[in-house]
Amino acid sequence: MKKLLIIGAGRSTSILIRYLEENAQKYGWEITVGDHDLQTVKARVLPATRAVAFDVFNEQQLNEEVQGADVVVSMVPARFHPLVALSCLKYSRSMLTASYVSPEMADMEAKAKSQGILFLNEMGVDPGIDHMSAMRVINRIREAGHDLLCFETFTGGLIAPESDNNPWHYKITWNPRNVVLAGQGDPARFIQEGKFKYIPYHRLFRRTELIDIEGYGKFEGYANRDSLKYIEKYNLQDVPTVYRGTLRRPGFCRAWDVFVQLGATDDSFTLQNTEEMTYKEFINSFLYYSREDPVKTKLYQYMHIDQDSDIREKLEWLGIFDDTRIGLKNATPAQILEHILCNKWALEPGDKDMLVMWHKFIYRSKGWEKPTLLTSSLVVTGDDPVNTAMAKTVGLPLAIATKMVLTGQIRLNGVHIPTIREIYEPILQELENYGIGFRENSRELNGE
Amino acid sequence: MKKLLIIGAGRSTSILIRYLEENAQKYGWEITVGDHDLQTVKARVLPATRAVAFDVFNEQQLNEEVQGADVVVSMVPARFHPLVALSCLKYSRSMLTASYVSPEMADMEAKAKSQGILFLNEMGVDPGIDHMSAMRVINRIREAGHDLLCFETFTGGLIAPESDNNPWHYKITWNPRNVVLAGQGDPARFIQEGKFKYIPYHRLFRRTELIDIEGYGKFEGYANRDSLKYIEKYNLQDVPTVYRGTLRRPGFCRAWDVFVQLGATDDSFTLQNTEEMTYKEFINSFLYYSREDPVKTKLYQYMHIDQDSDIREKLEWLGIFDDTRIGLKNATPAQILEHILCNKWALEPGDKDMLVMWHKFIYRSKGWEKPTLLTSSLVVTGDDPVNTAMAKTVGLPLAIATKMVLTGQIRLNGVHIPTIREIYEPILQELENYGIGFRENSRELNGE
Repeated sequence: MKKLLIIGAGRSTSILIRYLEENAQKYGWEITVGDHDLQTVKARVLPATRAVAFDVFNEQQLNEEVQGADVVVSMVPARFHPLVALSCLKYSRSMLTASYVSPEMADMEAKAKSQGILFLNEMGVDPGIDHMSAMRVINRIREAGHDLLCFETFTGGLIAPESDNNPWHYKITWNPRNVVLAGQGDPARFIQEGKFKYIPYHRLFRRTELIDIEGYGKFEGYANRDSLKYIEKYNLQDVPTVYRGTLRRPGFCRAWDVFVQLGATDDSFTLQNTEEMTYKEFINSFLYYSREDPVKTKLYQYMHIDQDSDIREKLEWLGIFDDTRIGLKNATPAQILEHILCNKWALEPGDKDMLVMWHKFIYRSKGWEKPTLLTSSLVVTGDDPVNTAMAKTVGLPLAIATKMVLTGQIRLNGVHIPTIREIYEPILQELENYGIGFRENSRELNGE
Repeated sequence: MKKLLIIGAGRSTSILIRYLEENAQKYGWEITVGDHDLQTVKARVLPATRAVAFDVFNEQQLNEEVQGADVVVSMVPARFHPLVALSCLKYSRSMLTASYVSPEMADMEAKAKSQGILFLNEMGVDPGIDHMSAMRVINRIREAGHDLLCFETFTGGLIAPESDNNPWHYKITWNPRNVVLAGQGDPARFIQEGKFKYIPYHRLFRRTELIDIEGYGKFEGYANRDSLKYIEKYNLQDVPTVYRGTLRRPGFCRAWDVFVQLGATDDSFTLQNTEEMTYKEFINSFLYYSREDPVKTKLYQYMHIDQDSDIREKLEWLGIFDDTRIGLKNATPAQILEHILCNKWALEPGDKDMLVMWHKFIYRSKGWEKPTLLTSSLVVTGDDPVNTAMAKTVGLPLAIATKMVLTGQIRLNGVHIPTIREIYEPILQELENYGIGFRENSRELNGE
């Protein structure tokens, strides 16, 4: 009887756990789910599943549980995966995550290999389904002998049109802290027509491009982190354009940029007196002093927001000019902004979210003058605020991969992401049973 | 016979060394000057001074030299002061620097006190003369029983009008790396009319104020780091406005902001292929891709720089659209920009620099309705590209303080900055002999 340990039962694990519990009955696995909040686990799992209060910093408990399992799925915050991985190395247990391969994780490659275990990362949606679906098309184009000229990919966790009732056309469907910090850190990097391009954080939300997805309307995309590191991973060394982006509804980025410009998304320092501060005073702390002008006027003046700009409606709808007390002690700007947004951008009962992914490929067939544009899009709608599109698209590929490791269908060693055919092909096929399938469009390009 | 050790003989130590050498003859001191480049030291010092090749990372040499001295002056880059300070703690030697008190330095307070030694920091011009001259006026205002309402202070290391022959009205008179990185890190912080204000780096150079100094024309000032930490140091807890700023000639900041907005001042990552890159390609790496538009057009478009803007002249004068090869390996944007600027903003033979400091105080006298505005300004002109105003104003206060420690006129223990009357009063008096004196103006304020 195979034993599976899942660490972390937070947001977006519902569908992961449900899938694995269903398969546990079929294959006779024993599942343990651990979380620092035992009640959360108990609410999530079936009676057959063992629920434990779990502290990832409790080395003894971590080692005992890892040793007692055959395979480990780590759903803890990404920065704690290395803790779990070290324990997995100690007891030669394979591990799966939905998170980016961190430098610490990458450094474990040799050790994982030598112990014959697999650390399979980036198994969620973005990163995850993006890799798998893109690699499938890229390999198909190449196997047909075509010359790939451009690869762009965009993903967004958004709100379904039927639940879209705010001027930002956005609600929070994943970690709200990451919503506020999105794009921070090193400049975004990509390559376009053979030119390396770098966008610093404070310009990121003004360098968007507009995308139209048939049947779902228009979106805007901004550059997502370091696209260059996927050139090697996808084997795209000879492709002049490689760009990864994040999708929002049009107008979101320009309004969000107001917070970026103010400094209101900064998480590196704490403001004075935040406990006493109101929303309006929070905004005012980033504005010039004036004896006469109200905060709202100063913000619009400072940011050049015209009277007829839709940015005004978005900002005012958030209540940032209200005298509401924040009530957080020693908070960073980012923490305060997250607090404000979590109230306004929360999923309401009955709300459905929407996960959108869009790939763009341009290739030239041998002997053809004009290149072909191939687009591939995925739109998944959530069932409700718990069984979200985000939970489905993060949880299902990770769950299927976990099943494949447990059943021996995946037999790899070392640190991997799902760019390998033996991983992505069966997973993409099975995902289609859950309504997670891509729709392609293709046409010849006629120049500009 | 007292022994003095000076570590570091780089830019702006010429006048420091000369002053101390002159006093060495009078007081019979023995001076050692150490630098990693022995030739630099030999060129700087008199025959009576001992010149040594010095490696601050050579712990044995550091300890031997510190032990052999009575007082140490550290002119090494600021981040290495703690190394010297640790050795000074070991042998109970007092030490002086012209640098900001770092957290590591502040942490040595108890140890320095218990050993009866002094670590006197911020003894240059900014920080240094600014503290001393401001504290003198602040104490005078308070001793007269007036109520201080506002304190603002600005300093700039600039070029003298007679040597000002470029459209930036700026040349490099101190560490060029710091010129490029100025303002980076935590947001600038200050308090205005009782409101705490925060300016992130990417807005800093657009939040300037215009200042007119009689006889020297107009300047613009931008916020300098954390003004809040001086509230306690200056004992200004009840003052509604406290602001420290940096001066440039009008128009500098707006043009400099173009590099900030591009991301060209970023020192946190290296660009691809910098060895092959030209100036123009460097700029282009931060711009959108276009099949037709030249780099210059794209920059002006992206940054909304109008045809009649003086920013165009400034940027073009720097040669940033030229096909000149950079020739630096694995360089950060900041390193490349420094390389470009060092060529264009270098002091030429015969050039004179200019150090400008300007304080603004507003106070209300008891029983008077209208407050008084008191301004205090200092302008120092350099003699030539070696004996710069920067070298004078950094070197002389530090040199005078060193003399006072050696002669026993300063008898303090612990970590200090020159906000104490027994330090600043004699130093400010002696500085006047060197033409470093403040000019005051005062008038009643009539409301807006």
